[in-house]
Amino acid sequence: MSANSSFDILDNLLPIRGISIGVAEVGISQKNRKDLLLITLDKNTKTEAVFTQNKFCAAPVIVSKEHMIKSRKESSLVASNIDCIRALIINTGIANAGTGKEGVRHARLVCAELAQLLKCDVSQVLPFSTGVIMESLPVEKIILNLPIALANLGPDNWYSAAETILTTDIVPKAISKKIRLGDSVITITGIAKGSGMIRPNMATMLSYLATDAAISQLLLRRMINNVVDKSFNRITVDGDTSTNDSFVLIATGKAGNREIIDERSSEYIELQDAITEVAIYLAKEIVKDGEGATKFITVKIEGGKDLDECTRVAYAIAHSPLVKTAFFASDPNLGRIIAAIGNAEIQNFNVYDLKFYLDDLLVFENGKVAVNYSEQAGICIMSKSEIIIRVLLDRGVSSTTVWTCDFSYDYIKINSDYRS
Amino acid sequence: MSANSSFDILDNLLPIRGISIGVAEVGISQKNRKDLLLITLDKNTKTEAVFTQNKFCAAPVIVSKEHMIKSRKESSLVASNIDCIRALIINTGIANAGTGKEGVRHARLVCAELAQLLKCDVSQVLPFSTGVIMESLPVEKIILNLPIALANLGPDNWYSAAETILTTDIVPKAISKKIRLGDSVITITGIAKGSGMIRPNMATMLSYLATDAAISQLLLRRMINNVVDKSFNRITVDGDTSTNDSFVLIATGKAGNREIIDERSSEYIELQDAITEVAIYLAKEIVKDGEGATKFITVKIEGGKDLDECTRVAYAIAHSPLVKTAFFASDPNLGRIIAAIGNAEIQNFNVYDLKFYLDDLLVFENGKVAVNYSEQAGICIMSKSEIIIRVLLDRGVSSTTVWTCDFSYDYIKINSDYRS
Repeated sequence: MSANSSFDILDNLLPIRGISIGVAEVGISQKNRKDLLLITLDKNTKTEAVFTQNKFCAAPVIVSKEHMIKSRKESSLVASNIDCIRALIINTGIANAGTGKEGVRHARLVCAELAQLLKCDVSQVLPFSTGVIMESLPVEKIILNLPIALANLGPDNWYSAAETILTTDIVPKAISKKIRLGDSVITITGIAKGSGMIRPNMATMLSYLATDAAISQLLLRRMINNVVDKSFNRITVDGDTSTNDSFVLIATGKAGNREIIDERSSEYIELQDAITEVAIYLAKEIVKDGEGATKFITVKIEGGKDLDECTRVAYAIAHSPLVKTAFFASDPNLGRIIAAIGNAEIQNFNVYDLKFYLDDLLVFENGKVAVNYSEQAGICIMSKSEIIIRVLLDRGVSSTTVWTCDFSYDYIKINSDYRS
Repeated sequence: MSANSSFDILDNLLPIRGISIGVAEVGISQKNRKDLLLITLDKNTKTEAVFTQNKFCAAPVIVSKEHMIKSRKESSLVASNIDCIRALIINTGIANAGTGKEGVRHARLVCAELAQLLKCDVSQVLPFSTGVIMESLPVEKIILNLPIALANLGPDNWYSAAETILTTDIVPKAISKKIRLGDSVITITGIAKGSGMIRPNMATMLSYLATDAAISQLLLRRMINNVVDKSFNRITVDGDTSTNDSFVLIATGKAGNREIIDERSSEYIELQDAITEVAIYLAKEIVKDGEGATKFITVKIEGGKDLDECTRVAYAIAHSPLVKTAFFASDPNLGRIIAAIGNAEIQNFNVYDLKFYLDDLLVFENGKVAVNYSEQAGICIMSKSEIIIRVLLDRGVSSTTVWTCDFSYDYIKINSDYRS
């Protein structure tokens, strides 16, 4: 098996040694659907997490952050019983956000009950929620269902896990990958949810990505930021950032490889590349399953002075409702892209330097539509389901890529009907 | 007639002494509709204008800015023949934006032809366009129609002018107002267009507001900025800013009042208040006629540390597609407002300090839904066609107001079909 082995998608998700998964049907906002997910981790597993930057972060985010800090502190003490995070408990249906101190109490209560069942400390449990904001979590019903989730724990339930965490998503998002590091075969499996309220800085999405690789806590922490910057922080559906976004990276260390402790080692680089690849796959799947999305749009900005201005231009395009509706209509009303770029607040920008392409078709140069551009060629590309907008700023060497989708009737429908 | 005389709407638009209006049917992008508007100004009229801040500002904006600068410079010279701006020429259908140097040449050509007909200098003509971006202006057809517009010039054509400049707007927007200043009766008449691509900093809108008051050029310049800050820069439909926005304020000085030269005089303040009132009326009409709008939403932010953070919070709410679709659905999914506020990047913000209301209904306090809030009461307010969202930040004395609308199926429809 080579390091470039292709992904195993959905029907062939690979278990990760040291991780078990159980689900239950609580009936939080809908009956007869799985809505509670339990992930348990063996001792000595290393866990890192990043969370939403929304000021109204949800109660489970507040509690998970506290538990991450406590677990880091304790795990550095020789005499502590608390060796690492031992469980993640995730519910869908209600986000437990905008629920004040009661919400925090609820999240803690679920963790405490689960800790008792698992015979670990409450701080070794991380809680997560997704769903409607400002509604109260039915905490007794969740607690009643913890033993059921516990009873069906198994290593092979990753697909079921991906189904359980969905809200307005249509398609479960999950993937596995194997790579060889030295003499060891390393497995990576990840799941994700999210389809509206998707924006950089961890917009309403939950994603759990696990590997059996052995790696130091310090390098895992470094890796999670690198991975997120290249994947989940490069996507946008509607420019809204959720109160509950969380991305968790878990390394159980059971693969038998020598623990990775050097950031410059080929092992670190290969592992990070593979995990990034899995995360990008999941991030793109979120956009493709964006609420009402009919087109997958890659926005590439090149030749910027710095990353910051590239990012501003990319999101000015990716967030413009007028650009997004034009793509929905397959209408090459491409002046809207120009208008969006012109709003990106770039200093000292000469519009005559800008070129932009749809796929390989040059659309705009010298401040006007390109000489060889034709409406027919534009329509032809706009009608595709995957399209690349490539913008050349011609004022530096920085570049960036952002992935987004179009804006359709169904976006309105889904978001008008969400609670009914 | 008191200073508080109510507005005269549409069927009773008042002429402004010193201003004539003519229209023509060029067939720029549609046949059998008025699409060319000529406004002529008598000698000694004072004109001020503000324009879009989009980097890809349209060719007519480039030319109008140049002509404004030249006319200001010339009018200060004793020996100059160029006393003031003498004509505005406005076309709908094509925006003449993203059209490079050819676009600028086209705009200049139209001005030059009109200047010849009017026997004035080319720099005394201001050109404006609105419509599709990145298409070439049919400049010969426009020039051929200039004599027709000229032939039907008259003082009473304001309603026809308001109809002529529409694009995706449904309703012509026009209004008149009279006030008494000392012994003189002052008339103000304004028109506007715009319904998508509407955002602060003069988003796709054109508005022409004229008065017969006598006022110094310096004070008119000061006034235009004050007026815009309180009206057109307080509205948003979809967060996109257009390449063509322009607002023109004209004072013919024919009312017979003593020229206003003191910013602290009651005459200045009364005139500015009246003109602001007219501009706010037109700005709100733009939002009400927002593409597909079914609800008119006033977002009031109070108790902020400074205007800047109030504005950020207001637009975070007003631009959120999730908030806008919830209003379309009359669904009090009000956690979306919380999530939007949480994204507004306010430093050191304590979420427990925040309160928010729908009209007079307290929805949120102490970090959670208000004790007396009921879903039924929420639905009742959300079902109204005009709704106030009032947010109390409780950390200072600054406040601001922004007007916006909901996001409906018809927004998608209008913007998908625009060119077809």
